Formats: sequence, C-alpha cells, structure tokens
Amino acid sequence: MPAFETTIKPRFYETDGLGHISNTVIPAWFEIGRTEFLQSLAGGPGARRRVWLTASIQIDYVAETFYGSDVSVRVTDVKVGNTSLTLFGELWQDGKLTARGSSVLVHMAGEGGGKAPVPDDIREAIAAQFA
Amino acid sequence: MPAFETTIKPRFYETDGLGHISNTVIPAWFEIGRTEFLQSLAGGPGARRRVWLTASIQIDYVAETFYGSDVSVRVTDVKVGNTSLTLFGELWQDGKLTARGSSVLVHMAGEGGGKAPVPDDIREAIAAQFA
Amino acid sequence: MPAFETTIKPRFYETDGLGHISNTVIPAWFEIGRTEFLQSLAGGPGARRRVWLTASIQIDYVAETFYGSDVSVRVTDVKVGNTSLTLFGELWQDGKLTARGSSVLVHMAGEGGGKAPVPDDIREAIAAQFA
Amino acid sequence: MPAFETTIKPRFYETDGLGHISNTVIPAWFEIGRTEFLQSLAGGPGARRRVWLTASIQIDYVAETFYGSDVSVRVTDVKVGNTSLTLFGELWQDGKLTARGSSVLVHMAGEGGGKAPVPDDIREAIAAQFA
Repeated sequence: MPAFETTIKPRFYETDGLGHISNTVIPAWFEIGRTEFLQSLAGGPGARRRVWLTASIQIDYVAETFYGSDVSVRVTDVKVGNTSLTLFGELWQDGKLTARGSSVLVHMAGEGGGKAPVPDDIREAIAAQFA
Repeated sequence: MPAFETTIKPRFYETDGLGHISNTVIPAWFEIGRTEFLQSLAGGPGARRRVWLTASIQIDYVAETFYGSDVSVRVTDVKVGNTSLTLFGELWQDGKLTARGSSVLVHMAGEGGGKAPVPDDIREAIAAQFA
Repeated sequence: MPAFETTIKPRFYETDGLGHISNTVIPAWFEIGRTEFLQSLAGGPGARRRVWLTASIQIDYVAETFYGSDVSVRVTDVKVGNTSLTLFGELWQDGKLTARGSSVLVHMAGEGGGKAPVPDDIREAIAAQFA
Repeated sequence: MPAFETTIKPRFYETDGLGHISNTVIPAWFEIGRTEFLQSLAGGPGARRRVWLTASIQIDYVAETFYGSDVSVRVTDVKVGNTSLTLFGELWQDGKLTARGSSVLVHMAGEGGGKAPVPDDIREAIAAQFA
C-alpha cells in the first residue's frame, strides 16, 4: 500500500503523435502528486503555505502510459534531510508500474529567504505516515 | 501584409494522437499573438504593464496545422471600443490559412479595479498601425 | 441539472502569473467535456471510434477560475445538424458559473473521408438525453 | 561553445503562480532540444525517422527561468552506448545557467521492435560534432 496516492484521469490532449501519454506530461503528473502530498502534510490547500523549491527531479519511463484509464500517482517513500525532502514516487495504470521517479524539495523561509530547516510538524507527519 | 505578426515554432509535444497540432494548442498560440501585440503597442515586455482581461475568444479551425514548419500568428485588424479591443487574427503555415479567430479584451484599471477606457496612446498606436 | 457533466481537478501548473487558471487552459477543459460527452453517446472509450472534427469554438470567460476546488464541465444543450453537432457548455466552480462556450463538431467518414451525416444512434442518444 | 543549441521563446502561459517558468515546462523544453538534436544528426524533420525511446531523464533546477527573454537549450555532450545515447544538456538565459539535465535515449528497431544498436551514421555524426 502506498503511503500517499492521488488519481489522475489522463486527458486526450496529453497523448502524443504515437498515441500514448507524452513524456513531457509525466513530470507534470509527478508534480501534482508532490503538491498534493505536501498539502496533505500541511493540512490541505487552505493551510498556511510553506514554500518548497524543487531542486531536482529524476524519472524512469518504465512502460507506456495510455489514455483511457486512470493513473495512480504515489509517493512511496520520503527521506528527510536537514533543509530538504527527497520524495520517491511511482505511476501505476491498470495494475502496471509505468514510471518511477524521485525529487528533491528544499524548504525555503518565505519569498527571498534562504534554505530553512524542515519544520518539526512536517517531520512528525512524515514519520507517522512512513513508519 | 499583416499589421502584426509573430512566429511560432511548433513543438513535437503539441501534436495529438492523430499527428497534427492539438486543437487545444491553437487558442494558446493566439494568446501568444495577443500578448506580443499588446506589448508592441505599449513598448515591449519592459514597459508599464497594462491589464487586459480576455472576455471572450472565438476560433475557426480552417485546416490542420502540422509539426515541422513555422507558424505565423497574425493580428489582422482591431476594433477599438470604449473600454475594450476586439482583435481579429489568423494562423498561417506554409502559405496556407489554418485558423482564424477573434477575441475581446477589456482594459482594467489595475488589480481589483473595474473596466477603464482604452488609453489614448493605445488608440493612437492602433490607428497608426491599421490606417 | 446539466444533461452531461464531468469533473476536473485543477492542477497547480495550470495557474498563470496572476494566480488563477490560465485562459489557455479553459479551451482544453471544454475539449475534455466534449470528448467524454461523445464517448458517453457512443458507449465509452472502448467503443467504435467515430471521427469528429472540431470546426470552431467560442468561449466567454465569465469569471475567474481558481486552483484548489473542483470544476464541473457541463454540456447543457446540443443542436443536431445534418453533418454536425453544435454543443453548448458551461464551467462551474463552487456554485458559480465561470465560463460559457459552444463548439461545432463535424462528423467525418473516417480518415481522409469527407463530411458524413450524423449517425442515427447518435441522434437518438442525444434526443433521449436532452428531451 | 555548445555542440548543439536551439532557442526557445518562453510563452506567458508557461509561467506559474509565482511569476517564473513552471518546473513542469522545463522537461518539455529539454525534449525540444533532444528532438531537434536528433533531427540534426539524421538530416532534419524530413529525414527517415529513427525511433528513440526516452528511458529516463534527470534535471537540476539551478536557477529560476523567466518570461521575457529567450532561452538557449544546449546539448553539451553525448555518451554513446551500444543501443542507447546519454545526452547532457543545459538551459541558459541572459548569460546565466538556469537548468542542467541528462537523458537516456534507447534506439528502437521500428514500432514493436526491440532495442537495436545505435546506427553507424549516428555514431559518426556525434563523434564529428563532439570531437
């Protein structure tokens, strides 16, 4: 069971000339997963906004993703650093792993501020979820 | 000769499952034309920013647009109202008209403000360009 | 009650520099509504694929659409012509109408074919739904 | 001097709610660079199409990228394997490195075929360009 999961309904215009979901769309879907995961930790879209800067991403395109059935975007693990989180994620469609990735998110102390320690409530929420 | 023209290089990921530029991309290209046209009237991206709200758009898909050759986005005429502009535009590729459209842009007096008269310098710039 | 409705969850990257859903995204969402509506008439994504060419679209941006709550894309009426359908649609968010539009879809007799009469089963399905 | 370079004009709708180019757009721009680089090796869009499958991508977001000035997408190095290429690339804007990335492309022997050795003409073209 994934620790966090959100569902994407692929859109017809996200397919490419070869009939499957464009490679350029997959990073955007992982971002949706990241954003919703961070909101879930912080209490939803209405909560006080924390600023996370995406420092890097990595994606393996394991298999083709298609239009016509839902895709599960999962956060499978999180490594907590001093000022950053490393998220590990997967895309699944029809019981098949189609992409795997990771990203590094740096916690910023507001606009114009520099790196700041990952807040304790976030550390605790992650520890509880990935125990 | 069009009164205003900008060039778009189609991107592979803008094609759809049928191999031509997705219908969902064409409105975005017309917006690029609109934005650059308004910047040209006002003195480029660095100029004082005027707020134009897009009230409506209309597009006729005349022919398919393809990946592999440049597209010219043109503003062919402008009708100036009291607080709005109606822009008429066209897309051309390889000497062929592929789309035709219009849009209504309302001039707003800054964020939170309401409709405001089209400024005189904009009226004059348009009159000079479409004389 | 709308005759056909599908739900879109706005994505963070669909917001623009001003913090609301980009004007360029709204036509894409209407296309999602159109596509799913046509699939519902024809029996879902797995059904025999009918080719509908989008001949034109028209959109009124009635109010801003935001990130953070679901959007209902509705087909509110359909006018059936000889070889085309005119669809009328609306976007609603948090009980508020944010966009209204229409589109003309032409029925094509397969790739390379020309316009073809709207099939009887489609006429009947529409008549039943919008009675 | 980069071995291969193409220029992107950022589009207003590619900015995000914070006013700079969305993280989700950068992978798409790198794909544009990859696609044009491969076309340059093979003789342009009109040449016989070789099938390259993107197996993985990696991106470091070094600095923010903005709307309003052109971006140079560069392929700075290529490592040639048996059936794959590893491309190294960079984005530059106003004399500043804003992103750095790499991707692994696998050569496929047509649709439905499996991995195939990198063709000799491609090896030679790369060797000449990155000598």
